[in-house]
Amino acid sequence: MNVKILGEKNIPNIPWQEKPADYGSPVWRYNENPIIKRNSLKISNSILNSAVVSLQDSDKFAGVFRVDDKGRFMRLHVGFSDDAINWKLSEDKIEWINEDPKMAEANTWCYGYDPRVVWIDDRYWITWCNGYKNAPTIGVGYTFDFQKFYQCENAFLPYNRNGVLFPRKIDGKYIMFSRPSDTGHTPFGDIYISQSPDMKYWGEHRHVMSPRGSWESRKIGAGPIPIETSEGWLCIYHGVLESCNGFVYSFGAAILDINEPWKVKYRCNHYLLSPQEIYECVGDVQNVVFPCATLCDAATGKLAIYYGCADTHVGLAFSTVDEIVAYTKANS
Amino acid sequence: MNVKILGEKNIPNIPWQEKPADYGSPVWRYNENPIIKRNSLKISNSILNSAVVSLQDSDKFAGVFRVDDKGRFMRLHVGFSDDAINWKLSEDKIEWINEDPKMAEANTWCYGYDPRVVWIDDRYWITWCNGYKNAPTIGVGYTFDFQKFYQCENAFLPYNRNGVLFPRKIDGKYIMFSRPSDTGHTPFGDIYISQSPDMKYWGEHRHVMSPRGSWESRKIGAGPIPIETSEGWLCIYHGVLESCNGFVYSFGAAILDINEPWKVKYRCNHYLLSPQEIYECVGDVQNVVFPCATLCDAATGKLAIYYGCADTHVGLAFSTVDEIVAYTKANS
Amino acid sequence: MNVKILGEKNIPNIPWQEKPADYGSPVWRYNENPIIKRNSLKISNSILNSAVVSLQDSDKFAGVFRVDDKGRFMRLHVGFSDDAINWKLSEDKIEWINEDPKMAEANTWCYGYDPRVVWIDDRYWITWCNGYKNAPTIGVGYTFDFQKFYQCENAFLPYNRNGVLFPRKIDGKYIMFSRPSDTGHTPFGDIYISQSPDMKYWGEHRHVMSPRGSWESRKIGAGPIPIETSEGWLCIYHGVLESCNGFVYSFGAAILDINEPWKVKYRCNHYLLSPQEIYECVGDVQNVVFPCATLCDAATGKLAIYYGCADTHVGLAFSTVDEIVAYTKANS
Amino acid sequence: MNVKILGEKNIPNIPWQEKPADYGSPVWRYNENPIIKRNSLKISNSILNSAVVSLQDSDKFAGVFRVDDKGRFMRLHVGFSDDAINWKLSEDKIEWINEDPKMAEANTWCYGYDPRVVWIDDRYWITWCNGYKNAPTIGVGYTFDFQKFYQCENAFLPYNRNGVLFPRKIDGKYIMFSRPSDTGHTPFGDIYISQSPDMKYWGEHRHVMSPRGSWESRKIGAGPIPIETSEGWLCIYHGVLESCNGFVYSFGAAILDINEPWKVKYRCNHYLLSPQEIYECVGDVQNVVFPCATLCDAATGKLAIYYGCADTHVGLAFSTVDEIVAYTKANS
Amino acid sequence: MNVKILGEKNIPNIPWQEKPADYGSPVWRYNENPIIKRNSLKISNSILNSAVVSLQDSDKFAGVFRVDDKGRFMRLHVGFSDDAINWKLSEDKIEWINEDPKMAEANTWCYGYDPRVVWIDDRYWITWCNGYKNAPTIGVGYTFDFQKFYQCENAFLPYNRNGVLFPRKIDGKYIMFSRPSDTGHTPFGDIYISQSPDMKYWGEHRHVMSPRGSWESRKIGAGPIPIETSEGWLCIYHGVLESCNGFVYSFGAAILDINEPWKVKYRCNHYLLSPQEIYECVGDVQNVVFPCATLCDAATGKLAIYYGCADTHVGLAFSTVDEIVAYTKANS
Amino acid sequence: MNVKILGEKNIPNIPWQEKPADYGSPVWRYNENPIIKRNSLKISNSILNSAVVSLQDSDKFAGVFRVDDKGRFMRLHVGFSDDAINWKLSEDKIEWINEDPKMAEANTWCYGYDPRVVWIDDRYWITWCNGYKNAPTIGVGYTFDFQKFYQCENAFLPYNRNGVLFPRKIDGKYIMFSRPSDTGHTPFGDIYISQSPDMKYWGEHRHVMSPRGSWESRKIGAGPIPIETSEGWLCIYHGVLESCNGFVYSFGAAILDINEPWKVKYRCNHYLLSPQEIYECVGDVQNVVFPCATLCDAATGKLAIYYGCADTHVGLAFSTVDEIVAYTKANS
Repeated sequence: MNVKILGEKNIPNIPWQEKPADYGSPVWRYNENPIIKRNSLKISNSILNSAVVSLQDSDKFAGVFRVDDKGRFMRLHVGFSDDAINWKLSEDKIEWINEDPKMAEANTWCYGYDPRVVWIDDRYWITWCNGYKNAPTIGVGYTFDFQKFYQCENAFLPYNRNGVLFPRKIDGKYIMFSRPSDTGHTPFGDIYISQSPDMKYWGEHRHVMSPRGSWESRKIGAGPIPIETSEGWLCIYHGVLESCNGFVYSFGAAILDINEPWKVKYRCNHYLLSPQEIYECVGDVQNVVFPCATLCDAATGKLAIYYGCADTHVGLAFSTVDEIVAYTKANS
Repeated sequence: MNVKILGEKNIPNIPWQEKPADYGSPVWRYNENPIIKRNSLKISNSILNSAVVSLQDSDKFAGVFRVDDKGRFMRLHVGFSDDAINWKLSEDKIEWINEDPKMAEANTWCYGYDPRVVWIDDRYWITWCNGYKNAPTIGVGYTFDFQKFYQCENAFLPYNRNGVLFPRKIDGKYIMFSRPSDTGHTPFGDIYISQSPDMKYWGEHRHVMSPRGSWESRKIGAGPIPIETSEGWLCIYHGVLESCNGFVYSFGAAILDINEPWKVKYRCNHYLLSPQEIYECVGDVQNVVFPCATLCDAATGKLAIYYGCADTHVGLAFSTVDEIVAYTKANS
Repeated sequence: MNVKILGEKNIPNIPWQEKPADYGSPVWRYNENPIIKRNSLKISNSILNSAVVSLQDSDKFAGVFRVDDKGRFMRLHVGFSDDAINWKLSEDKIEWINEDPKMAEANTWCYGYDPRVVWIDDRYWITWCNGYKNAPTIGVGYTFDFQKFYQCENAFLPYNRNGVLFPRKIDGKYIMFSRPSDTGHTPFGDIYISQSPDMKYWGEHRHVMSPRGSWESRKIGAGPIPIETSEGWLCIYHGVLESCNGFVYSFGAAILDINEPWKVKYRCNHYLLSPQEIYECVGDVQNVVFPCATLCDAATGKLAIYYGCADTHVGLAFSTVDEIVAYTKANS
Repeated sequence: MNVKILGEKNIPNIPWQEKPADYGSPVWRYNENPIIKRNSLKISNSILNSAVVSLQDSDKFAGVFRVDDKGRFMRLHVGFSDDAINWKLSEDKIEWINEDPKMAEANTWCYGYDPRVVWIDDRYWITWCNGYKNAPTIGVGYTFDFQKFYQCENAFLPYNRNGVLFPRKIDGKYIMFSRPSDTGHTPFGDIYISQSPDMKYWGEHRHVMSPRGSWESRKIGAGPIPIETSEGWLCIYHGVLESCNGFVYSFGAAILDINEPWKVKYRCNHYLLSPQEIYECVGDVQNVVFPCATLCDAATGKLAIYYGCADTHVGLAFSTVDEIVAYTKANS
Repeated sequence: MNVKILGEKNIPNIPWQEKPADYGSPVWRYNENPIIKRNSLKISNSILNSAVVSLQDSDKFAGVFRVDDKGRFMRLHVGFSDDAINWKLSEDKIEWINEDPKMAEANTWCYGYDPRVVWIDDRYWITWCNGYKNAPTIGVGYTFDFQKFYQCENAFLPYNRNGVLFPRKIDGKYIMFSRPSDTGHTPFGDIYISQSPDMKYWGEHRHVMSPRGSWESRKIGAGPIPIETSEGWLCIYHGVLESCNGFVYSFGAAILDINEPWKVKYRCNHYLLSPQEIYECVGDVQNVVFPCATLCDAATGKLAIYYGCADTHVGLAFSTVDEIVAYTKANS
Repeated sequence: MNVKILGEKNIPNIPWQEKPADYGSPVWRYNENPIIKRNSLKISNSILNSAVVSLQDSDKFAGVFRVDDKGRFMRLHVGFSDDAINWKLSEDKIEWINEDPKMAEANTWCYGYDPRVVWIDDRYWITWCNGYKNAPTIGVGYTFDFQKFYQCENAFLPYNRNGVLFPRKIDGKYIMFSRPSDTGHTPFGDIYISQSPDMKYWGEHRHVMSPRGSWESRKIGAGPIPIETSEGWLCIYHGVLESCNGFVYSFGAAILDINEPWKVKYRCNHYLLSPQEIYECVGDVQNVVFPCATLCDAATGKLAIYYGCADTHVGLAFSTVDEIVAYTKANS
């Protein structure tokens, strides 16, 4: 490996397929995609933009999944897997525990979608787009065991989406990406960073990146948890181009400064993956690849990227930290 | 049967396939869908949202079909079938007879689409979205034999779509659903009922249902002719969700009071069918299932649902009155 | 008089001022406009698009007035006058009597605005834009004495505005203009005619006029009650031009066939009046003159035109039937 | 006084005029409005939505004023007055001191507008709509003397406007209203409350009020600093109605729970003041009254309300706490 | 004079008023504005954005005026004046002579507005926004005597507005500003230059300026004929800011390179004049000052600026070349 | 052949497949479509709307291809083929030679797409949509050998697309179609003709066709180089219908007068081809067939039509001049 990976664990059983011969791009698809199909649960209309982790204390995997039911209500479900490819999802949605009764009132469940999960210090933190009186903002919660889930205060005022935590504190503070939005299918979107001493009160907001044309001309948003490397924070993010027939969601990469992550060191002007397969182009929302999680094997730099396909299924793609870092630097 | 069916005839030769094993929803597709393909006629670009009936005096079937020609002009064609699956459509569009010359002037043909057909008393009544000087409203006509078609006055002022008659008078008056619209791809839509002593003058308009979020968040409109049951009028209707890439048309069910059908007894918060097959997701308008007719066998409660697929083809799906009523009540 | 006036009564005390010298247009303003100011009632934010009549059995005047209260809720108030210039309005809104309890439910009060009043046969009929579950349509009611007001069924399905009755039946049927609309600040609008044998059920809808550019390029709508003349029905209507800074409401004239009033005989391509005075250009909605009523003295052809000013006040203007008919024919 | 005023100081020299005879509303205008005219400074295009306070240690007044220069760039200027009517504004804009160099970078000046000022504990806190890389959010700063101004971290992520502090901590935390927005002339807007232990990190966000039709049908936003009374927090806020010719800004009142101010006790369904005078209806933005500050004399309950007129001038209006509280309760 | 004026004639009888004392801006209004009122002609609704010149061979003045008639049809009228303040306009619109019958067909009159007039070599050239089959583009014509007017080919394809010729050829070619547009109230607009050897075929198009925020944030367009000075071409142009209540038209100045006029030497970031007077803020289009012509006295540098007011009247303002050049350079 | 073909060369090796039996339309697809797939080049995201020609001096083929790279930047590449089906494209984009340094500045490369190529007199002329400071207009260039490419002045001001040259001068002038546009996904579009004596300055602009409903209801644009025939200029053009889910691009035909090609002799009201195959319906932009070139064998009238598929691939279809002319005349 050319790039040193910091802060990730070894995942010897990370899902993996070799890159196809003569394949020109740094990210390649699993050949049995999608790995989770829309009707996998009895009540599911679709299972999509979802977050998985390698468990700290075992070689198994768990995750929080976005499940839209047959009324198109958006829910979060827990799921488990031995191989990170075949997943067993709960039929029921996660019931969040709100220990403070005052907060419980504000946290009356409305809807939740597009979760991210990250291990920090002693627990798995979960963020998602949380409906607060039907206004989207960033929900925050945690679990120690994927059995009981505890909800915290929403991080921000509405309207916000794509809240993504960094895997460790910087300068004593939790760091979160988010993308301030409007009330609908927001036609703009920059990535910002916010900071918190306690995961409850947030401030010191910093602008990170704006869309800059071509594949990411309309808006951008953070994707999986950033990966700490010797080159900086490796961030995979989605970008949206608006054609005359709607939004096209692709994803690309940027590398941010380790200590001041609102400073962009490299930013790839080519996408890593765009919707080209039928299960990415056809579904509830056409032309979407939307990454919400990666598994990263610290020993080899292998990456398994989990992404929503056409807002309908969950897909899997592969790459390595070396490959993406090199490609990002070469096309920056 | 748990639910008693009123006012439908027995149709022993109704098209039928058993529900697939382990199939989780109350409506299942015919496995050779679409039953009518877009280029079936020499001049057709598409054959879609169409209405069929079991003939009163025979075991055969007839229908009125929406045919868009290769200039994308919308037309109505008559068709016949012995089995309600294989259809023979006329190459020519229906020529409406306007016996009153004054009315004939207002009824100068412009376009017609999305027909419904229902037997009331002594004849087959037909309603459709009728272009009156290029403004959409509800056209009304009838036939005794599917050979000659007589046109009446439009029921309402523009702009209106999805006019659907009840299969009998209530309190001495014809009853019609409709969905007031605007001049374009209307971003709103409620279902109303109107009443008429004579099928010519209409009044006593009543609001029935508004869209209420999730799969039916943008607008709703009546579908096939309502089915009279011991639980109330069983109504299948379409609902529209607007994603960032356009409208998604699904369909669901509600049960209305027999005597005051503007009162909703039950309303299913899950759809019955959403666009998931390639012929429903890809076509002239992506992601559309649009039901315009059912056949209902009074003896068994079997239902054959005819629906437009992606504004391109005609599809067929199955269920039973028992199953839909139970599902609607359970999810209301 | 060159033009014979049919069906109007003599009003010797009609408000009147002579046309100013050197005044180039056929309609001139009262020099003490506005005659009713926005804060005339304790609760009023504005008093605007309103309808007055000369009482059948006296030389006094009465009217139904649009009063928006200080919450901007739209209400209808009755008012009386001896000279048709100085008006005494009730502080309370009209309470509509709904004698049929079933209809009463549908007629639950929501809002009402832009009334018109006309004497037909034996009573004063009132139409207005009536909120039915917050959707605008045409409310219908009547009074014999401006003391008790009786409400009927709404004439049409939503969404509709500017319902205006003809002052007598034609061919045994009541005739009403209306302008089908959408749910908001409708960007289109044609004038239609509908017919009814009984003021309850309506049909035989006919298109009358579309906007045709320049001062009436965006939409048009009927104004005061049409005046029957030897040249046809004289109709004053409003037209809307959309500038880069919003709608401009002017008014003009057309003459319709007596027996088939959906046939336009003459239509003036110049406006009669456009917003030019400060009280017409500045107010709750800038640049609006919106006529809802005329008084017409059959003996002289004098016309007093009542119009809303900037959606804020009531203004008065003068002309004669001869003058408007001649101008309309000359500029048709 | 019926209502007890808490936490305000006595201001014997508060500007004052008696209510005009026969005046029907609880808020009346100063008869020499506007008190600050658009071209008062050499560089000013307009002087508008501005905040004044009675100084803690003297009988004089100071304020922070929104001044748009002749390029229409939005700036903040300090100003002083002996009588709170005649104001002397600095020709130069406020230069904010950023003591932390890291924060200084994020606080690079872009634009600032619609300030509010409040004394808490030991200093005057100032909030305003602050351009952060051209995105509007809530700027925070303070001064001890209106000579030197110190800038802090922005309170929230973009896009936000109308940040208004409460005049004391509740439960140990600073409390701020704000109205999350989008990037433009936001067509929506609710009032939220956020809480902070240190004026740097913010959380525990609570929804307070949504627009609810009529005069406040499009959006609402907090206005002057809330006034603590025995009935609760008296809040004057602006509401926006969207006519076919644009936004109309009026202002009204609500009374919030003292300890849980996100709970609304009373909310007036009538406005207190709407744009009716020529200087409120005509200017850079037509039809705007926009209150940003009040002076409240604790001894008498007299209120002087400072509000922007047509986005062009500063106007002054009067009322009393008793009168507004009574009116709000009566019309709630 | 500090700035040398090239290519203008002496106009000793140029209209003139001294700058008011203590007036802070470089452009001041005539104190009897507007000089031409909306109803000056019998058929006129408004007389606005118009162009005047000092005649080559006399001390009199002539011009081409935009007259919108009472149908709001846009027309061009000729007018004459002895003092350039009191104007006598023809009651009839200009009849263009099309000598080539083929061109005459394309030049069928549709509408014309916002003219500019300039003397080049041997004749007065006129450009205007010309409706070609209802699509706006740049009409071109000339006159020798303001009696007969000859029409040429339209300069460009639709959609275009604000075509303004330079007063002499550069490098052997005619030079024209224009502002490519769309079909409506265009929400964008840059100034371009095009070049022609013969006033018939145009090419070598060059971008000159884009809007850049604040008073000119939405679009810009060329105004009067540029004035050749020792500092470069002095150009007065309009800029548009879009408030929540519509467009605000102000005007400012830029100085362009003499030989390569697509190169901007200075550009004033403050406007010269914005709509502040009642006749500029209220009218058919609120908040518009729109300059189409200047008179410039070469001997003194005095400038008389003719501008449309609120799309309703013609106004007059004064300045000097020295003053505008100095202000532009100081605020560039 | 019924129709005489003028001005085309014989192409004995034109790609060809016979029309399928029972195929009802005049244009049929190549059965191995698409002929150029999206990822054919290492850097390509898509290869689409492209232009090919039969070389003058050999039996080989060359072309200019639109290649969007993996950042979705739009580029032009040269390509060659022996059989016009299997194409070898350059990996690098065309480097345009700008011999005049002044012009070179204006021609700084930005983006280029949708090329057309035509042989006139002594060289191959190329037109394309050319980004001039990010504004789309018509780029012009030429090559003698497809090795060196020379750029000229842009033909028109922005905003324009679909510039298509006629294959010979008419009346001594080059003739070009174009479609004036706006800055985005233009919702309107007519076809115009412009004329030039020298390919540098353009004028004598003439309107040719507007969209007229149904399959071409939103906008139209020229497609391949017109073919000169005894019936007139045969023009294949695209038309756009806007469904609730976006634009649908089909193509049809018109026949124009030989000497005055802005006069339409026949225009087919049916499309020739609409998106129906999966590679036309699914891709970066759904539902697009977009023709940019034909090969025409003068000896037989065989036509090979090259068209972009879903903005993703290049497809090939066949017809004959006789067939399209007959169909166009029959359905005109």
